[in-house]
Amino acid sequence: MPNILKQVLTIAGSDSGGGAGIQADIKAMSANGVFAMSVITAITAQNTEEVTDVLELPTAIIASQLDAVFDDFDVAAVKTGMLSSAAIVETVVTMLGPQRVTNLVVDPVMISKSGHSLLRPDAVEVVKTKLLPLALVVTPNVHEAQHLSGIAITSLADARRAAKVIHSFGCKHVLIKGGHLINERATDLLYDGRFFNILKGEFIETSHTHGTGCTFASALTAHLARGRSVLDSAQAAKAYVTEAIRHGLAIGHGQGPTDHFYFLER
Amino acid sequence: MPNILKQVLTIAGSDSGGGAGIQADIKAMSANGVFAMSVITAITAQNTEEVTDVLELPTAIIASQLDAVFDDFDVAAVKTGMLSSAAIVETVVTMLGPQRVTNLVVDPVMISKSGHSLLRPDAVEVVKTKLLPLALVVTPNVHEAQHLSGIAITSLADARRAAKVIHSFGCKHVLIKGGHLINERATDLLYDGRFFNILKGEFIETSHTHGTGCTFASALTAHLARGRSVLDSAQAAKAYVTEAIRHGLAIGHGQGPTDHFYFLER
Repeated sequence: MPNILKQVLTIAGSDSGGGAGIQADIKAMSANGVFAMSVITAITAQNTEEVTDVLELPTAIIASQLDAVFDDFDVAAVKTGMLSSAAIVETVVTMLGPQRVTNLVVDPVMISKSGHSLLRPDAVEVVKTKLLPLALVVTPNVHEAQHLSGIAITSLADARRAAKVIHSFGCKHVLIKGGHLINERATDLLYDGRFFNILKGEFIETSHTHGTGCTFASALTAHLARGRSVLDSAQAAKAYVTEAIRHGLAIGHGQGPTDHFYFLER
Repeated sequence: MPNILKQVLTIAGSDSGGGAGIQADIKAMSANGVFAMSVITAITAQNTEEVTDVLELPTAIIASQLDAVFDDFDVAAVKTGMLSSAAIVETVVTMLGPQRVTNLVVDPVMISKSGHSLLRPDAVEVVKTKLLPLALVVTPNVHEAQHLSGIAITSLADARRAAKVIHSFGCKHVLIKGGHLINERATDLLYDGRFFNILKGEFIETSHTHGTGCTFASALTAHLARGRSVLDSAQAAKAYVTEAIRHGLAIGHGQGPTDHFYFLER
């Protein structure tokens, strides 16, 4: 009896420091029981302190990576992360459209933990108008939700209004991550166009949060690939990222990464 | 008490299919208890059947990735994989030299399982003359050992002679992987310049061996980072890759990948 795992693709940038980007995605997907593949959109020279260099890849090699994956594998779910430029978003949209990926999670990465822009201003509009309509779930943090919706968010009520605006762009579910919400820390809001679910979590006091956004979205994508509902997948991903943050690694000189394999005996 | 893991770097190409390259390295290193980081040298569009496209990255972004990693992390071990061109090998040598990395594992990747060349002919000479002198261990398969040594290998006696030639290039240990050796299947040869060790393994009859070379070298590097001897690390890596192959994944239409996380309940 051959071994098979659900095959999950991340389309994102590379973080040389291993804590975010496709590196975090591969770790989080693997830790959540699926086989991880990756289409790289951009190379960042990055560590826990800063992004020192970025190379956006030519769209031709992004397209050929996507072809190689979809030509051979049975892709159960896809996650997008750093897409960097409007041309890259267009390429991804053009290639993903015909694949009719039902489990598409869009993590609308705009800025690194260290403050470096990871999505050009003109690309935001393409994400809103062309990528989000393909998405099953979009997972903005408060900053990204503000940017996408044009609504300032300082409360759950604000987040609800922003979720409605983002949902109107055509994605099926909006999950606003409240890690940065002052009054409702670690509280996420999930909106399916009709109902709101509040996902309350434990706030972990730590500076080692490099890559938490990538990690959460990747775990969510893995659970969707394994057949769980959006709500179940979001709760499983939240539980996972909370433990990964609790075991955050004090490595590097800045904001350390989470421990994606905290459950292993080492 | 802060959580810390040994930090290990792979310098290699990206395999979009997730079974080899930095993707396999990150999985194998994580599974063997270290924190994995990656400097990408080349992007391959690849799946279990073929390599359809390759983009060698500019040496400037390779250098800035290396700087970002060494400027911030406490790098306990480094593994090199696909280096593609002479210019890339030169860049890696120039940057690694001053770091005085004691645990450098060179996997002299020359060709993909599907038959695609991953190291230009003129780069082989730079690997021999400049990279191998920095290496603690070099891990050629039989094909690569033949190419490096100029000796045709069809027996363990041939492998011994080849190991001596390769050792003369300046690396401390030569580990010739005998997976392809007809009469001594799954038997590896480790040479430290004085003594030979034979590592006998179990040969697994399977076609799902995509990425086994990367996987073995990464597990070896992880164990070196954790303070084990070269022989102990080689034995641990061999035991790990044997299980990963035993649980090989029947995914994709060609040579499927190994299961790096076979030990997880999923």
